[in-house]
Amino acid sequence: MAITYRDAGVDIDAGDDLVERIKPLARATRTREVLEDVGGFAGMCRLPDGLVDPVLVSGTDGVGTKLKVAFQTGVHDTIGFDLVGMCVNDVVTSGARPLFFLDYFATGKLDVGVAESVVRGIAAACKEAGCALLGGETAELPGMYAEGEYDLAGFAVGVVSRARIVDGKRVAEGDRAIALPSSGLHSNGYSLARRVLLETLALRMDDRPPELGGRTVAEALLSPTRLYPRAVAALTATPGVDVRAMSHITGGGLPGNVPRVLPDGLGVRITGAWERPGVFDLVARGGPVDEAEMRRTFNIGVGFVVIVPAASEAVAMAALRASGEAPFALGDVIRVAPDTPFEERVVFAV
Amino acid sequence: MAITYRDAGVDIDAGDDLVERIKPLARATRTREVLEDVGGFAGMCRLPDGLVDPVLVSGTDGVGTKLKVAFQTGVHDTIGFDLVGMCVNDVVTSGARPLFFLDYFATGKLDVGVAESVVRGIAAACKEAGCALLGGETAELPGMYAEGEYDLAGFAVGVVSRARIVDGKRVAEGDRAIALPSSGLHSNGYSLARRVLLETLALRMDDRPPELGGRTVAEALLSPTRLYPRAVAALTATPGVDVRAMSHITGGGLPGNVPRVLPDGLGVRITGAWERPGVFDLVARGGPVDEAEMRRTFNIGVGFVVIVPAASEAVAMAALRASGEAPFALGDVIRVAPDTPFEERVVFAV
Repeated sequence: MAITYRDAGVDIDAGDDLVERIKPLARATRTREVLEDVGGFAGMCRLPDGLVDPVLVSGTDGVGTKLKVAFQTGVHDTIGFDLVGMCVNDVVTSGARPLFFLDYFATGKLDVGVAESVVRGIAAACKEAGCALLGGETAELPGMYAEGEYDLAGFAVGVVSRARIVDGKRVAEGDRAIALPSSGLHSNGYSLARRVLLETLALRMDDRPPELGGRTVAEALLSPTRLYPRAVAALTATPGVDVRAMSHITGGGLPGNVPRVLPDGLGVRITGAWERPGVFDLVARGGPVDEAEMRRTFNIGVGFVVIVPAASEAVAMAALRASGEAPFALGDVIRVAPDTPFEERVVFAV
Repeated sequence: MAITYRDAGVDIDAGDDLVERIKPLARATRTREVLEDVGGFAGMCRLPDGLVDPVLVSGTDGVGTKLKVAFQTGVHDTIGFDLVGMCVNDVVTSGARPLFFLDYFATGKLDVGVAESVVRGIAAACKEAGCALLGGETAELPGMYAEGEYDLAGFAVGVVSRARIVDGKRVAEGDRAIALPSSGLHSNGYSLARRVLLETLALRMDDRPPELGGRTVAEALLSPTRLYPRAVAALTATPGVDVRAMSHITGGGLPGNVPRVLPDGLGVRITGAWERPGVFDLVARGGPVDEAEMRRTFNIGVGFVVIVPAASEAVAMAALRASGEAPFALGDVIRVAPDTPFEERVVFAV
């Protein structure tokens, strides 16, 4: 008997069904720059008006083993939000406005309901970030993923006028670092966090350890990555604020990310104090995980850092507050020896 | 004893090592539009000069279970070429020039040598397609992938002046369809092809069945996806050629892809004859796989289709030949009933 593609494990009809379910979700994210009903093979997007020498800024990322938490809890409608967050928060560090986003969803056997939930989270985050969900790929790869599992990759493109690129080059000694709070782990350090919470401490997903202030382990682990595009847009649009550098705090924590946007010979001394989400204390005590390891693995409560000259600090803080953020003073830019190792350029004075 | 991120299965040093190995590969793909040494978090690219009302065209794709062939053979330096091909061939159907590419590489435990080989293939294809490898993400996801396995996603962005978008809207009855040959399976239909060749026929990777003309099964299955950006650039730059539609023949074959760029009520009658790569005959006989199923699963030798008015055909053929292609007449555009099912709008008259 003749065999077919479906016999080999690929169900094109399920893929078509998913495409139909995704269409209205993507449509709801459309911006005025998206060209509709054009192009059968690729998404199309114009540039916003008013740019001078436009520069495209792009980034790609995944959500790491935060995926495993989605698999284990069956909650699939926020992991896409994380995916968008990981990408657009990178893009806006340059001062760019996110324009569009594409996703790659790969699984062994397509579960249309699960995939739709994932895309629902993606679309919600795109809407909040002001970027269009312009396209995506759903790949059915029989035998590549365990049953019920999938992987996700995201891709974001933004745009900024060349003269308005924020690149850290003008950061100077005495500048101030402002922190924007994270909502928790965001999407980094899950291999360690899961090991400590679920293995060492043997917590269950519906346990409510006191450190989590009434929330379950599942809720704490699934807390969606915060999106910073609105805050950045508010900041860069505020007259009198000279934004000199921005850093998205991901894997590597503050020591691994802040120096990425600092000129040689400069570092940041952390003097601020903040109450970090309880999940970090739970992991630190439960491991135990040394504070130095905590700092270079997790965001420990700081999701995004903005560096401005001291003269801009008050206006910047006000603009960030007005955008809905709860910014706090993180520290200041200091001179360090030119041969200081990368990660030691962030000095914790607290 | 305190535990670390590395204990939890994530090796940041291996990731850093890979980044150093990738740098020169990416650097070799840089175009004049890429902004160097700017931005710690995202890749930056200017727009080429001379565009009027530029439109960004983007696509994302993976390589499906062609990955399994790379795993089984240990040949990892061409699968990245396929990844770029799948993405840029989609983007250029709009008439856009590919600008940049980003990749996502996910694995359970990072093998730096394998990942470097994959990126080497990506960089080689980016160079051939004239686009910059602007960034990428390497994700180590302990427990998500079988040992020695990985997944790949690619993202490509191109640009075209709005008035020069090729969108199929002007395709008319009597227009001619020109085929550009594929090199073999490209990156679609591998779940079926592998099942037939490796299970039903029980061939080994180093077998040389007569249909393959001296090549091994591994060589036929790994034959890299052809890139069409150069051919498209040559075509769209040739005066007197009115390119009305272009189609990248991927999953779904000619019937699944050509109608994506045809106005309602039009179809394509395939009248051309061509010698298809032997791997298709091997799969068809070995399955056996019905010819209809072959046509809607594989590209059966046609990787890309260009539709031009009859008056442009000779000039278009000459331009494609001059760009290094071996184009052939595939058929012509015909009128079909408005309610003709999508896939039946491609009529095989041969």
